[in-house]
Amino acid sequence: MSNKSTATRRKTPLRNAFYAQSGGVTAVINASAAGVIETARRYPRQIGTVYAGRHGIIGALTEDLIDTSLESPATIKALRHTPSGAFGSARFKLKGLEQNRAEYERLIEVFRAHDIGYFFYNGGNDSMDTALKVSQIGEALGYPITCVGIPKTVDNDLPLTDCCPGFGSVAKYIAVSTREAAMDVASMARTSTKVFVLEVMGRHAGWIAAAGGLAGSKASDAPHVILFPEIAFDKPAFLAKVKHSVDTNGYCVIVVSEGTHYADGRFLAEAGTRDAFGHAQLGGVGPVVANMVKEELGYKYHWAVADYLQRAARHIASKVDVEQAYAVGKAAVEFAIAGRNAVMPAIIRKSSKPYRWSIEAVPLAAVANVEKTVPRNFITADGFGITAACRRYLEPLIAGEDYPPYKNGLPDYVRIKGKSVRRKLKTTWKP
Amino acid sequence: MSNKSTATRRKTPLRNAFYAQSGGVTAVINASAAGVIETARRYPRQIGTVYAGRHGIIGALTEDLIDTSLESPATIKALRHTPSGAFGSARFKLKGLEQNRAEYERLIEVFRAHDIGYFFYNGGNDSMDTALKVSQIGEALGYPITCVGIPKTVDNDLPLTDCCPGFGSVAKYIAVSTREAAMDVASMARTSTKVFVLEVMGRHAGWIAAAGGLAGSKASDAPHVILFPEIAFDKPAFLAKVKHSVDTNGYCVIVVSEGTHYADGRFLAEAGTRDAFGHAQLGGVGPVVANMVKEELGYKYHWAVADYLQRAARHIASKVDVEQAYAVGKAAVEFAIAGRNAVMPAIIRKSSKPYRWSIEAVPLAAVANVEKTVPRNFITADGFGITAACRRYLEPLIAGEDYPPYKNGLPDYVRIKGKSVRRKLKTTWKP
Repeated sequence: MSNKSTATRRKTPLRNAFYAQSGGVTAVINASAAGVIETARRYPRQIGTVYAGRHGIIGALTEDLIDTSLESPATIKALRHTPSGAFGSARFKLKGLEQNRAEYERLIEVFRAHDIGYFFYNGGNDSMDTALKVSQIGEALGYPITCVGIPKTVDNDLPLTDCCPGFGSVAKYIAVSTREAAMDVASMARTSTKVFVLEVMGRHAGWIAAAGGLAGSKASDAPHVILFPEIAFDKPAFLAKVKHSVDTNGYCVIVVSEGTHYADGRFLAEAGTRDAFGHAQLGGVGPVVANMVKEELGYKYHWAVADYLQRAARHIASKVDVEQAYAVGKAAVEFAIAGRNAVMPAIIRKSSKPYRWSIEAVPLAAVANVEKTVPRNFITADGFGITAACRRYLEPLIAGEDYPPYKNGLPDYVRIKGKSVRRKLKTTWKP
Repeated sequence: MSNKSTATRRKTPLRNAFYAQSGGVTAVINASAAGVIETARRYPRQIGTVYAGRHGIIGALTEDLIDTSLESPATIKALRHTPSGAFGSARFKLKGLEQNRAEYERLIEVFRAHDIGYFFYNGGNDSMDTALKVSQIGEALGYPITCVGIPKTVDNDLPLTDCCPGFGSVAKYIAVSTREAAMDVASMARTSTKVFVLEVMGRHAGWIAAAGGLAGSKASDAPHVILFPEIAFDKPAFLAKVKHSVDTNGYCVIVVSEGTHYADGRFLAEAGTRDAFGHAQLGGVGPVVANMVKEELGYKYHWAVADYLQRAARHIASKVDVEQAYAVGKAAVEFAIAGRNAVMPAIIRKSSKPYRWSIEAVPLAAVANVEKTVPRNFITADGFGITAACRRYLEPLIAGEDYPPYKNGLPDYVRIKGKSVRRKLKTTWKP
């Protein structure tokens, strides 16, 4: 009997898993990768090998798969403290099945060649939409696959989850940097810079800008002005607020979201180029706002644009964020093994003080293409600050430090070997 | 005998000390303040009270002195981990004695009113010049004072000292940030940003830009291009280097000093305003360089301008830097007590591996107005990178971490009470 059972098991090859990183990377997306890979290794009778797409979904389409089984346990463990996308990420959005059937058929061709039965897609809003589409190919194209989306986005704009892994660490970076730079400005304001502008990410959602608000606690504390994409930019009100802050405190610190726009929708700054998802590529609202202050009020100013520094800053990651990033990766594998298709592990807040959370599965269909922006009651009446409710929401997300190891004064981040799986197909993919 | 001796001592009042922070603040200038104050407290029979100028030398001219004796030992200790200038700094340069005798006479009036016999001036190049001038008023204007300059500048451009406190922490911040952002770009380059530009401080000296070079170790590692103020900008050579890097590595990371200029001296970017020292206020070379790459080579780019974030980043301070900042403050008091006028504690390197250093007094006259830029043999032949000699020099300066304590996810920086000394003069100072 037991022999027969073994034989039977051998006849049903273990199905492998495909893991891909998608969209802008974060300080903790590799912690999710570690969660996926370490958990999959704990279920050797349920999941075969985890193959990672080199540069995300592009790796699947080009049959360029990284064999994660060749990475040592130490390497996978070190991914937890390594920022960026260790396997490469991609800005590449799959179109709908009707518009681009060939791409889905190519995916199935590659998946079939490598016995891939599990699809883990680690990304943000657009990526959850892609994950949803892939989850449907089982039925639509007759290829059985269990598809789980793993949330990741510094923008924190996915619905149904308390927050998005990646956000807490950016939030901590921006809160810390705002506090530090504001102290600098306060020291110097008597004879030098009066107005400091920090530009932060956040195209449509002002969560990162809001996190700047954690730098202070009293009304006189910096930042004195936060500009949210959720609030139409009102130039006279803004200038009055800046002047009031300089008159009252001697200086003014402004945190401005890259997505800040006028009532008619025009961004304060637009670089003019568009990314692969068709979004306008922004950048430069910081100097625009600083110049506005200089021209209208005459104050000496400085401005900073944190750009990638903010989302790559693993050196000042939030401990809670790292834990959650790992937890969603781990849960994704557990959900997949339990046969749950088209879901995403979401973080459910049980309480704020102390912060308690758990992971639950939510349907991808309810997540894809829904954007969670900062609610109006999280923004003060004048539109330039955060409320106590917002602070209560944000504070737990930046809690705790999780320092990487250092070597010669620098963080000792890991690089994967990244050995490719031998190609099985003779066909190639042409975009 | 002993009674008489005590009586004699009482008749000679202890002379107080004046401490001021000057110029741009740093992540560790308060560590020097802690070194001064804690050491002075250890010599109660040699030094009376340490008065700090509120906003630097302005505090002396306006008789706005902070009584540091009212700050608790815990507060002074916490200055060691607190960035910015806790007492306020100033961009205010004293002119020569001939041109502005009135200002020196005002200083003496205030110093005499408060029995100030020691002058500690914590600043950079311009400030060491001011300290030298003040050291000369004893002879020139008949007011005995012992004057010690305390080195501080993120620019690292003071001569005779191995490095300048404040620099090591900026260097660490820029090296860490460059490494992190470069990993981000490498993850995404296949379908997104190919060129990333990080603008760093350094008006005439490229030390901070050079520190970006520590992010990598192999030729293929980021940063692939460093633009120094010491090397005239050569556009065709620069573009060729960027193209080569993208062709070879798939991406290119550029660290550009704000002081980068053409052979004729024109800065790549000039904001057009000038600070109190008459220096052009720079900012914006990052986007200028990024746009140049876009226009000439067509690559998708991102850019960051770290600005004050870099010099305020106490959260990622170099342990060596913090120790040296404290040590120069401590030594300044010891030199003053020993009666050494017109000197500056300099850091003398004994060995690089392991890094061994000591503090020695150097004459202010030899320091003031001498600028130490990056020597040519620290820059690679092509002008776009750092040599092994440069790396050997820089590496010890970013060694070790010295994390501040955290509270609610944010660094717990201290604020002084900052109580003013009662004014004794009826006269006021008018600039």
